Amino acid sequence: MSSRSRSWWGWGAADEALPDAECVALGALVSDAVQTPLPVPDVAALALPKVRIEPPRALAPVMSAAPEDRASHTYGKAYRDVIRALNGDLAPAPDQVARPSTEQEVIDVLDWAADTDVAVVPYGAGSSVVGGVEYRADRHRAVVSLDLSSLDQVLEIDRVSRAARIQAGALGPGLETQLRPHGLTLRHFPQSFEFSTLGGWLATRAGGHYATLYTHIDDFVESLRVVTPVGVNESLRLPGSGAGPSPDRLFLGSEGALGVITEAWMRLQERPRHKASATVLFDDVHVAMDAVRAVAQSGLHPANCRLLDPGEAALAGVARDSQSALILGVESAHVPVDGRLAELLTLARDHGGTPLPTAPGTPNAAADTWRSAFLRMPYLRDALARMSVIIETFETACTWDRAPQLYESVRSQLADVVREVTGAAGTVNCRFTHVYPDGPAPYFTVIAPGRRGEEVAMWDRIKSAAMEILHDLGATVTHHHAVGRDHRPGYDRQRPEPFALALRAAKAALDPAGILNPGVLLD
Amino acid sequence: MSSRSRSWWGWGAADEALPDAECVALGALVSDAVQTPLPVPDVAALALPKVRIEPPRALAPVMSAAPEDRASHTYGKAYRDVIRALNGDLAPAPDQVARPSTEQEVIDVLDWAADTDVAVVPYGAGSSVVGGVEYRADRHRAVVSLDLSSLDQVLEIDRVSRAARIQAGALGPGLETQLRPHGLTLRHFPQSFEFSTLGGWLATRAGGHYATLYTHIDDFVESLRVVTPVGVNESLRLPGSGAGPSPDRLFLGSEGALGVITEAWMRLQERPRHKASATVLFDDVHVAMDAVRAVAQSGLHPANCRLLDPGEAALAGVARDSQSALILGVESAHVPVDGRLAELLTLARDHGGTPLPTAPGTPNAAADTWRSAFLRMPYLRDALARMSVIIETFETACTWDRAPQLYESVRSQLADVVREVTGAAGTVNCRFTHVYPDGPAPYFTVIAPGRRGEEVAMWDRIKSAAMEILHDLGATVTHHHAVGRDHRPGYDRQRPEPFALALRAAKAALDPAGILNPGVLLD
Repeated sequence: MSSRSRSWWGWGAADEALPDAECVALGALVSDAVQTPLPVPDVAALALPKVRIEPPRALAPVMSAAPEDRASHTYGKAYRDVIRALNGDLAPAPDQVARPSTEQEVIDVLDWAADTDVAVVPYGAGSSVVGGVEYRADRHRAVVSLDLSSLDQVLEIDRVSRAARIQAGALGPGLETQLRPHGLTLRHFPQSFEFSTLGGWLATRAGGHYATLYTHIDDFVESLRVVTPVGVNESLRLPGSGAGPSPDRLFLGSEGALGVITEAWMRLQERPRHKASATVLFDDVHVAMDAVRAVAQSGLHPANCRLLDPGEAALAGVARDSQSALILGVESAHVPVDGRLAELLTLARDHGGTPLPTAPGTPNAAADTWRSAFLRMPYLRDALARMSVIIETFETACTWDRAPQLYESVRSQLADVVREVTGAAGTVNCRFTHVYPDGPAPYFTVIAPGRRGEEVAMWDRIKSAAMEILHDLGATVTHHHAVGRDHRPGYDRQRPEPFALALRAAKAALDPAGILNPGVLLD
Repeated sequence: MSSRSRSWWGWGAADEALPDAECVALGALVSDAVQTPLPVPDVAALALPKVRIEPPRALAPVMSAAPEDRASHTYGKAYRDVIRALNGDLAPAPDQVARPSTEQEVIDVLDWAADTDVAVVPYGAGSSVVGGVEYRADRHRAVVSLDLSSLDQVLEIDRVSRAARIQAGALGPGLETQLRPHGLTLRHFPQSFEFSTLGGWLATRAGGHYATLYTHIDDFVESLRVVTPVGVNESLRLPGSGAGPSPDRLFLGSEGALGVITEAWMRLQERPRHKASATVLFDDVHVAMDAVRAVAQSGLHPANCRLLDPGEAALAGVARDSQSALILGVESAHVPVDGRLAELLTLARDHGGTPLPTAPGTPNAAADTWRSAFLRMPYLRDALARMSVIIETFETACTWDRAPQLYESVRSQLADVVREVTGAAGTVNCRFTHVYPDGPAPYFTVIAPGRRGEEVAMWDRIKSAAMEILHDLGATVTHHHAVGRDHRPGYDRQRPEPFALALRAAKAALDPAGILNPGVLLD
């Protein structure tokens, strides 16, 4: 666990939360209807539901029912989670928070829970924005949040094969710190990097640093070790295999419903020695999309390939006058990359782009500006939430043939919904976070003024409208935020019915007592 | 279906089989103990088991119990299959061969089979070398081979996203012919390319053209359409998704045990305009392995990266004097590749290799020599089989840290087994067919003189010894040949037990009557 004090109600580090005055100033950019920030309640003074179960003696040392622990493990970090926490609504709080420091303790918690009908919600660092760590059912005797953060070690490094055995509770910075002396890196940098764990990334199929080729954490998995209620599932360490359906792929994306990932052998990268990046501007967002497609289909595999639409580009300060910005980055541990960047820029220019001048070897200011805004964004989201501004980010993927229509439909249809729900125009911006030869992964940000006391209801209406639009267009309900509970309506419609039967059967086989994260993926 | 007449007993096209005199000459290279080739029986004269079931009237037009159909659908093309066919042993022949020409007919066959307790063995083009299409149980009333080869059309092409909807029964050449006018290619070229189907590749996770990045057909799947006994499973066309465990990954590698793949949206490539290749020689095979590892970890992603050990290189005529040969190839539809090849050759030279001189722009003779030998190999295998020579090819994958030991152990331990079984030294050669940053996929070829009448028993002993050695070293039982029935002992031990429970449960949910390819993957 990071030594910095974590916010129990909002994103990340408590001391990074914006002070009230900044919340007010930020909120005023969206609306002047709300003048004061929602106060942050004193967690010790909050009314938590009664604790319904005590741990058995053997597990007592790793369990806690302290109010701070229960409060901080009640929700993830979705907008609706933050609002409810600020409102002091902690109704779904777990009865206990378990912090095992050995795999045997994970097994013992599951055994005890299965025997006593206690639901277990696996918890990495709680950055879920889809209700992935919030128990919402009421058919169990009690609920335990199973916090893996004490299992945070890099246990073994295979320098030759460039791989490491890493415990699931390791946070991004912690695992990188342990790999750095070996010249290696996992290079998985989701926005939540500081406040999410390897196990969480694996269980949710997180999207990472690479815009092309290695977009999901899935691609870096050599083998998984998963504690299920019927035994430990450990796959062989293999660079590739064709022996039946991949066992690992069943657990990747299983969101704690099929087992608890305790460790994984992960493929690593050498630290890049050569890097180059550049920004390309486009006057027309559709021209920009065609250029990004050409890049995605070129086989040049940029590490970064992020398209910001005019709204995003303006917000990030990297373009103006309705221009779109494409941020390209290439990197290598072995060979110089300036030639590859030049090829990419030629391609972008051939497709109507205007590269911003960058002196060779100097950092790309636009990329840096964007990157720091990116990591700061969740704190700004919380500040706006305190001003009752409605913010939702959702992400998807579709094939290129439908991308322009998706972009236009989401923007126009969702703008209508925002107007209907909030009475204001709001903004709907878009960026492409990852791109594939056959399609992009668009990421939308919606910002609109809300009404105090109605934030969650307003957010829910916008969220479900967004899901409806994606469904109508045949786009996925999530590219890398996972399903959790908030995306269930879209997921249930997207998932082929025979596969749903197979998944339910697999769940019943692996978790016969039905204690593992009830309500995610399946009922 | 190819218009060329297919061999009912051996590989590929009937007219490509070697004449008797060539069989004798080839056999003499291995042993002079056997002087005459096993005769090829007249299929019309063979005793086939009695047909136990007649089709219902509605399905009669797509079903056949003709001896030629039953004989040619009895086995795949493993060595033991060829020997048994030559011996006229067709005991496991299916009762009927169904050739549906619509998906509805596939559904109708499954419905009828489930109702009447008839086992259904999905059949693409029958190139399985692992017993994937041979019914070996005896608990069903009858057996139908479900031949998909009439469903062979490219139904739709999305030029923008570079993808096509292709029916599962399309053979390699047929689908490429349909894609060529659009300037696109699937570029999946397994050794069986001419005589295997898209559906077969998907069901067995076939390995293809690309030595790096896109090694398995899995990577080119956008969505699958699978007929299961409980309904049609169709996934969304998506370039990427994080919505729960991948539905497609459950069916990829399911080998006909969970459903019948009828079509797929496949990611395509533009036809490469730039190609370059070169051969690098090494005096020491372990130095060569280190060089290949450097290439695999360089991020340069050669399309071809095939290491031939001294025995393979000598057989292929690309090296001599105990040298190993590394064949490198790069290709691109968009940018020249000579620079990338030069970088690869620098890397290989830095790691102790000696590139063979090739004039720029001229074809690489060694690569071409090797490629034609590669496609010819199965016919030579059949010719040697007719001379009772024992031949087995098996392939695996392991991490780089274990690769040298795997290479040495397989060669020495298997040589011992070969000597014990055959009384002769035999040869055990190896090549790396695909390479990953974290490990290679070694492919072994075993050749030794056999004794007439004991071929299958001798082969079985060598096969099971090979599986044992791979298991002891933690290598996968198969990288791209699949599991079928022949690899079950190794697969059963490799597969994590909780995953086995989940897979059995999924099978029971999707195939409640247990009619689909009984015995592959699961009992």
